[in-house]
Amino acid sequence: MPVTDQNYKDSDDLNMKSNIRKSTGQIAQYLGSNLLGDTGKIITGVAPFEDSSPHDITLVGDVHFLKKLDKTLAGAVIVPESFKGVEGLVAHGRSVFPVKNPRAAWAMVMQLFYPPFHPQWGMSNSAHKGKNFICGKDPNIGPFAVIGDNVIIGDRVVIYPHVYIGEGAVLGDDVTIYANVTIGDGTKIGSRVIIQPGTVIGSDGFGFAPDGEKWTKIPQLGIVQIDDDVEIGASNTIDRATFGKTLIGSGVKTDNQVHIAHNVTVGDNSLLVAQVGIAGSVTIGKHVILAGQTGVAEHLTIGDGAIIGPASGVAKDVPDKAVYSGAPAQPHRHWLRVQNVVATLPELKKRILKLESLVAGKTDSGESEKD
Amino acid sequence: MPVTDQNYKDSDDLNMKSNIRKSTGQIAQYLGSNLLGDTGKIITGVAPFEDSSPHDITLVGDVHFLKKLDKTLAGAVIVPESFKGVEGLVAHGRSVFPVKNPRAAWAMVMQLFYPPFHPQWGMSNSAHKGKNFICGKDPNIGPFAVIGDNVIIGDRVVIYPHVYIGEGAVLGDDVTIYANVTIGDGTKIGSRVIIQPGTVIGSDGFGFAPDGEKWTKIPQLGIVQIDDDVEIGASNTIDRATFGKTLIGSGVKTDNQVHIAHNVTVGDNSLLVAQVGIAGSVTIGKHVILAGQTGVAEHLTIGDGAIIGPASGVAKDVPDKAVYSGAPAQPHRHWLRVQNVVATLPELKKRILKLESLVAGKTDSGESEKD
Amino acid sequence: MPVTDQNYKDSDDLNMKSNIRKSTGQIAQYLGSNLLGDTGKIITGVAPFEDSSPHDITLVGDVHFLKKLDKTLAGAVIVPESFKGVEGLVAHGRSVFPVKNPRAAWAMVMQLFYPPFHPQWGMSNSAHKGKNFICGKDPNIGPFAVIGDNVIIGDRVVIYPHVYIGEGAVLGDDVTIYANVTIGDGTKIGSRVIIQPGTVIGSDGFGFAPDGEKWTKIPQLGIVQIDDDVEIGASNTIDRATFGKTLIGSGVKTDNQVHIAHNVTVGDNSLLVAQVGIAGSVTIGKHVILAGQTGVAEHLTIGDGAIIGPASGVAKDVPDKAVYSGAPAQPHRHWLRVQNVVATLPELKKRILKLESLVAGKTDSGESEKD
Repeated sequence: MPVTDQNYKDSDDLNMKSNIRKSTGQIAQYLGSNLLGDTGKIITGVAPFEDSSPHDITLVGDVHFLKKLDKTLAGAVIVPESFKGVEGLVAHGRSVFPVKNPRAAWAMVMQLFYPPFHPQWGMSNSAHKGKNFICGKDPNIGPFAVIGDNVIIGDRVVIYPHVYIGEGAVLGDDVTIYANVTIGDGTKIGSRVIIQPGTVIGSDGFGFAPDGEKWTKIPQLGIVQIDDDVEIGASNTIDRATFGKTLIGSGVKTDNQVHIAHNVTVGDNSLLVAQVGIAGSVTIGKHVILAGQTGVAEHLTIGDGAIIGPASGVAKDVPDKAVYSGAPAQPHRHWLRVQNVVATLPELKKRILKLESLVAGKTDSGESEKD
Repeated sequence: MPVTDQNYKDSDDLNMKSNIRKSTGQIAQYLGSNLLGDTGKIITGVAPFEDSSPHDITLVGDVHFLKKLDKTLAGAVIVPESFKGVEGLVAHGRSVFPVKNPRAAWAMVMQLFYPPFHPQWGMSNSAHKGKNFICGKDPNIGPFAVIGDNVIIGDRVVIYPHVYIGEGAVLGDDVTIYANVTIGDGTKIGSRVIIQPGTVIGSDGFGFAPDGEKWTKIPQLGIVQIDDDVEIGASNTIDRATFGKTLIGSGVKTDNQVHIAHNVTVGDNSLLVAQVGIAGSVTIGKHVILAGQTGVAEHLTIGDGAIIGPASGVAKDVPDKAVYSGAPAQPHRHWLRVQNVVATLPELKKRILKLESLVAGKTDSGESEKD
Repeated sequence: MPVTDQNYKDSDDLNMKSNIRKSTGQIAQYLGSNLLGDTGKIITGVAPFEDSSPHDITLVGDVHFLKKLDKTLAGAVIVPESFKGVEGLVAHGRSVFPVKNPRAAWAMVMQLFYPPFHPQWGMSNSAHKGKNFICGKDPNIGPFAVIGDNVIIGDRVVIYPHVYIGEGAVLGDDVTIYANVTIGDGTKIGSRVIIQPGTVIGSDGFGFAPDGEKWTKIPQLGIVQIDDDVEIGASNTIDRATFGKTLIGSGVKTDNQVHIAHNVTVGDNSLLVAQVGIAGSVTIGKHVILAGQTGVAEHLTIGDGAIIGPASGVAKDVPDKAVYSGAPAQPHRHWLRVQNVVATLPELKKRILKLESLVAGKTDSGESEKD
């Protein structure tokens, strides 16, 4: 075989290579942050705390990291503004970036050093382009992609191989559609949207009218609209509306294997974690978080800022900012209190049996109880 | 960028365009229904109650709609036969179709005005056709579809781009396979079957024999058979049988992300809602409804006409026509009674504590209880 | 239409055809097992107990089969070493293979008679090969497969149509990738790995840093590594690590629609049943079984040999060899005891009411209770 151990080893770091070099001063400018220590240090990458080299920048999340400063070789560190220990870090030769939101700064520095990597296909000759295709600047369209008639795409759009884009779809600027994604006809997608592989947008909603023992298909005539800055995970399914639109608001992020039925609205900046399922005509507010494997029954409303715990079953409306858990989903604190009692039920049952004995004036009820 | 606000707006109505014109008399004939009011009115589309124009037909489901008749401009309405208020509608200039099953009639009128839209590829030169491919009349096969050796398909079959059809598969007439679907070798599909995008039919069943710490693959030698008038949702997985067949009966409809394991039988006209998972060798009766996220353990039987509530865990057989809920699934009424008590458990526990105090002859048990 | 009833019937047995003929003596040699009865009998296939012909070999799992020996015509049978009844089988003209592990032997005999079937594409001209593609012996690469730059694959690799293999991926020998699979850049795959259709390997992990109301993408720089002898089911999603690798140990088998988040490690020979979801940075031990629809919360550890029941919600670490069930997951025996009491809660509540009446010195509490 042509594959050697070295081949496996080489590829290990493939995604970690960066040819980008920035001085600590440039990074401070990029972040709009203060900088303590050496402003001219050259940084060439980002790394986790314990795996850093002197040319890496890393994240020091809290004071616990101070105790293990000898574990990192990082030349530069991002810390919270409130961090007590900046002087120690500088004394140890680090360049220090105190910021308001360290995790967001860390994410932005990673974006700086590791811009998205895509193969450069230009406009592949092996892609199928439909009639009246209107294409923005610098397209990057892979082999065997299929673009339907009357499609319009913005600038710098990346379309991976085996993507199908249905008739009349509209995509904004800087959209990335990974491999094996299906985009149904009429879908509207904003700018800076990322769709991970294997996802289906614009499949028919699950609409059937009972007619005796059989089911008559209700044609699904609406579309899916995905607003700016959305990221859709791998192998999601988002159905087109019966009439009108299924709407994914701007800034929404979905994890893998999320299902969104017809006529659902997901408000701006909400997070849907893996394997969430949302039934038809549900309205989800802004900045909502649905934890993994949660289901939401049809026609419900989840208020702005609500958080629903994992594997919950939402069976009625949820107010703004509420924290719910369980199946059926209920206020998290009540659910916790109930769960605490549930866990002690066998013992509670024994106490009831004992009470029954005592009340009956017997110390031995004679009952043989298996629980 | 070449995408304008007008582009987004234009595409909004893409799927709603219909060039079909029918008189109300023609619609009555198509539905086989009575018609009151103008029989010569021209109808050009179907719309929801509040979004209708005078050339639209809409649905008036019950008398509550009567109160808001001023909210619709629809020129024609479908109503239940029992509807009290037909005269009022006719007096307001509507053509009225009283029918036994309004939702089914509504679905059929939508089918009349909005026949399925598919790009017209004919037999694409960019598709790959295997040896001994036998193809019916009027095929519509998209670019980069791959059809294996010895495949037979009926008339008017639509195969979207990036579909893979394995060796020896047989498809009936009027079948539609959307993009990025995989059909394993030997799969049998009836007529008028629709398979939404991203679905996998005929993957290997999950069969492994333990051999010490390791697992030995049990080859999966059977097939999947899908009967007439089935619709399979997006991103389903239906495994081939170990021996024999996994069988999806006629008229079955599945929602998105449904998983059906090897050797399962799903009876005619059953509905499987999104994210349902069915383990191996389960037999599901006819006209069963499994609500979303429900799981069924292996080798069980679910009787004809049974209904299983959302996110249930079916752990033993379910009788005909039973309504079950919960995990483990149990008769719905019992489950409701149990859930009602569960919700009050913290309060019940306090009552038990109080009883214990009283029985012990004390009013203060001295116990510090946190629940 | 060109499809006849005979076409449907013909294809029924497509996968069951085997041109392989072996004597019972050859099979004993292959299994390394004893053989009683005729050693020269020719066997041409494997079949279930009741569907066997005299040239088939079948499995007799336990003594219950002895009572219905007249139901099988099989010429050869695999039995457990401990099986009491070998003489009866031999007397009835069967060749008998007593083995330590009958199911594993049965699986191996099936592998012998039914080696994996794949179309023979060789290196399809319609596949897209990137720069510096290093390809082992006897490749079998289907039409419209796309292989990125700097990919290395071993000998006898099968790549179905519409597979996308990202830049720098490395695959070992005897790997099979079914249709419509996406393999992200940098993925490392060992030898004898099978990936069922529609699966996504190496999508971005779900990593976003909160920044006010918005979410900033955390670039996902790591890879996915899949070791030898792994089988991944259909429509799985396995995310790349943020840094480092998401690791699927050797011999792991996953069912369909399994989700594995970034930085997860799955230990050797573990089984993940359908629709399991594993959150980020979870460590799963060796030879663990997660039953269907189970979820595991982030950063947890599940010990070697643990078994988690179906639809469980793992919310804290699980020790080695533990058997857990429920949501939240807990020791299975405790969960069973709790569930038994839960099922009787309405009756328990009545008993509490009765106690309250008795203790209050009344026989009728006057309370009207609906549960």
